[in-house]
Amino acid sequence: MKGLTLSDGQLRLRDDLPLPTCPSGEALVRVERAGICKTDLELVKGYYPFDGVLGHEFVGTVEEGPPDFVGQRVVGEINAVCGRCSACRQARPTHCQDRTVLGIVNRDGAFAEYLSLPVENLLPVPDAIGLDEATFTEPLAAALQVLEQIHIRPTDHVLVIGDGRLGLLIAQVMAMTGCALLVQGRHQRKLDIVAARGIATTRDTDYDAGAFDVAVECTGSPEGFTDARRAVRAQGTIVMKSTYAGDLTLDASALVVDEITLMGSRCGPFAPALQLLEQQRVDVTSLIEARYPINEAPAAMAHAERKGVLKVLLDF
Amino acid sequence: MKGLTLSDGQLRLRDDLPLPTCPSGEALVRVERAGICKTDLELVKGYYPFDGVLGHEFVGTVEEGPPDFVGQRVVGEINAVCGRCSACRQARPTHCQDRTVLGIVNRDGAFAEYLSLPVENLLPVPDAIGLDEATFTEPLAAALQVLEQIHIRPTDHVLVIGDGRLGLLIAQVMAMTGCALLVQGRHQRKLDIVAARGIATTRDTDYDAGAFDVAVECTGSPEGFTDARRAVRAQGTIVMKSTYAGDLTLDASALVVDEITLMGSRCGPFAPALQLLEQQRVDVTSLIEARYPINEAPAAMAHAERKGVLKVLLDF
Repeated sequence: MKGLTLSDGQLRLRDDLPLPTCPSGEALVRVERAGICKTDLELVKGYYPFDGVLGHEFVGTVEEGPPDFVGQRVVGEINAVCGRCSACRQARPTHCQDRTVLGIVNRDGAFAEYLSLPVENLLPVPDAIGLDEATFTEPLAAALQVLEQIHIRPTDHVLVIGDGRLGLLIAQVMAMTGCALLVQGRHQRKLDIVAARGIATTRDTDYDAGAFDVAVECTGSPEGFTDARRAVRAQGTIVMKSTYAGDLTLDASALVVDEITLMGSRCGPFAPALQLLEQQRVDVTSLIEARYPINEAPAAMAHAERKGVLKVLLDF
Repeated sequence: MKGLTLSDGQLRLRDDLPLPTCPSGEALVRVERAGICKTDLELVKGYYPFDGVLGHEFVGTVEEGPPDFVGQRVVGEINAVCGRCSACRQARPTHCQDRTVLGIVNRDGAFAEYLSLPVENLLPVPDAIGLDEATFTEPLAAALQVLEQIHIRPTDHVLVIGDGRLGLLIAQVMAMTGCALLVQGRHQRKLDIVAARGIATTRDTDYDAGAFDVAVECTGSPEGFTDARRAVRAQGTIVMKSTYAGDLTLDASALVVDEITLMGSRCGPFAPALQLLEQQRVDVTSLIEARYPINEAPAAMAHAERKGVLKVLLDF
C-alpha cells in the first residue's frame, strides 16, 4: 500500500508498504482523509524518536474487524492502551505506561491507505459529519481537553495565544463557555476566521498585564509563554497546549510569589468532539488551507511546514 | 529602638532606629519573638531589592491602636493591602497590586523592637499558645495554603521534598489529610522529627517514578524540582513551595505530554494556623534550633544560613 514513512529522520513516500497486521481485538481501517498536525512536523525534526508511518488525524472505513463495525465510517482515539497499568486502572488511559500512539509512539499511523487500531478506540461517525469535518475530531478533542482539566467560568477572562490550527479550535471551544475571550495572533487572515464568529482578536499585546484569569498557550514558543505569563493575574492559570521544540526557562520564584498554575494539556475526549461537529457548533472547514492526494504527501508536509499555514489535508 | 536592617545589601544591627510611624488604621506592636525564614536569607543575597528592617514571622503585644486591641498578644498577616484593586476586590488580598509586605516589600519588618501593621491584619493569640509556638503562625499558614489550593484526597500518594523548616511543617499539614505520605530529605536528624509523628521518611529517591499523585517541592533547588518531576504520575501536580534562587529550566514538551500541573504557593490563612497550634495538632517546637537575643541578630542570621539548620528565633 501507499504511505508516508519517517525512517532515521527521513520522510519517504512508499507504495510497497505491507498492509498492517491486524492483531486480535483490532480493526483494519481504510483511511479516507487525514490531517497534518504540528506534532507530525516536530517528529520529522526529531522532537521524539519515531520510525514508521506518520499521521494520527484521520477518518476512514472499517474493512476488517467485528461484523457490526465492518463498513462503518470511523474516527479513532490515537492512544492504544494496555488496560492493566496503574494509569489505565485509575481512568487515565491516555497516559497508559505501555501505550502505543498512532503515528507517534511505536504504531504505524494514518498517512497510509490502511491503519490498524484496537476496536475499542473506534467511534462511528454520524452521517451528518462530512469527511473533512470528521478529520478534525482528534484536534478538536485535544482542544476540549482544556475544559476537562480546568473549570472555565462565564465570569473568567481568557486569553488564547496563537492563531494556528490548534489555537483557532481552542478559541472556539473556549467561546462555548461564555467567558470573556480574547485571541492573540500574528495573522489577521487567520484571526478573521474566529472573528467571524464574534470572538475578539488582537495582533498586539495591548492588554493590561494580569488582565486574564486563564491563558491558553498554543504557540509552543518561549515568546508565547512570556506573553501568557504577563497576561495572567496572580493565582491565574497558564494552560500549555502545544508541542514545545526545546526547554523552557522560567522565573520560578515569580511563579511562586504570584501563585501561578501551569498545566500541560494533551489528548482529549472524542465523543463530545464528534457531538460538536454533528451540531456544527465549531467551524473547522474554514481552517482547511490545502489538500493533497497521498501521492503528494511530501509536498503536503512541506506546505504544512510553511509559516502561517493552517490545516493541510491528505486525500486517499 | 533596636533592630536589624538591610541596606544596600548590608545587614546592620542598629539601636538608633525611630519607632515606626503608625498611620491611621494601624497598630503599634511590641515584638516579643521573631523567627528567621529562608526568604530573609534570600533578601540578604539580593533575591528581591529591599531596604529596611527585615523579618516577618513574629508574635508581639499591641501597645498603640484601638482600645480593645491594646495589651492584646497578636500575630499578624504580613501583606498590608489596599482593599480597592482588582485582586483585593476578587478576594485575593495576598496578591494586592499595591501591597506592602512586612519585612519584604516596602514595609519595615519584625526584627526590631516595634513594628506597625494595619489593625485588620492582627489576630489575637489564644492563651494556650506560647510565644515560641505563636512565632510559627506565619510559616504554618503558608504550609496550609497548599490545602487551600489543591484538594488532597485520602487516597492520594503525596511526596514532600525537603526536610527544612517549611518542609517539616508542610509534611505535618499533609499528614492531616490522611493521604499516603512520604517525606524525602537529606538529614536523618530532621526527618526524625516528623518520623516521630508516624510519617514515613526517606533519604533516597528509591521510590518508583510516577508513584505520587502530588509532590510538594520545598527545597527551592533545581535538584528538588527534578526529583518532583520524576516522582509524580501523569496528570499529577507539583506544588512549588519555596523561594527559588534563580531561573528554572524545564522540558516543556514532557510537561505537556504528561499533562503535569505546576502550582506556585505562597502565603496562607492565619486563623486555621492558630487553631492548629491551639489544638497542638502540629509540632513546631521541635523545629527550634537556636535562639538569640535581638542584640545578636547578625549571629542569628549567620546561624540560620548554615546548611541543615532549622528554625532560629530572636528574643526581645
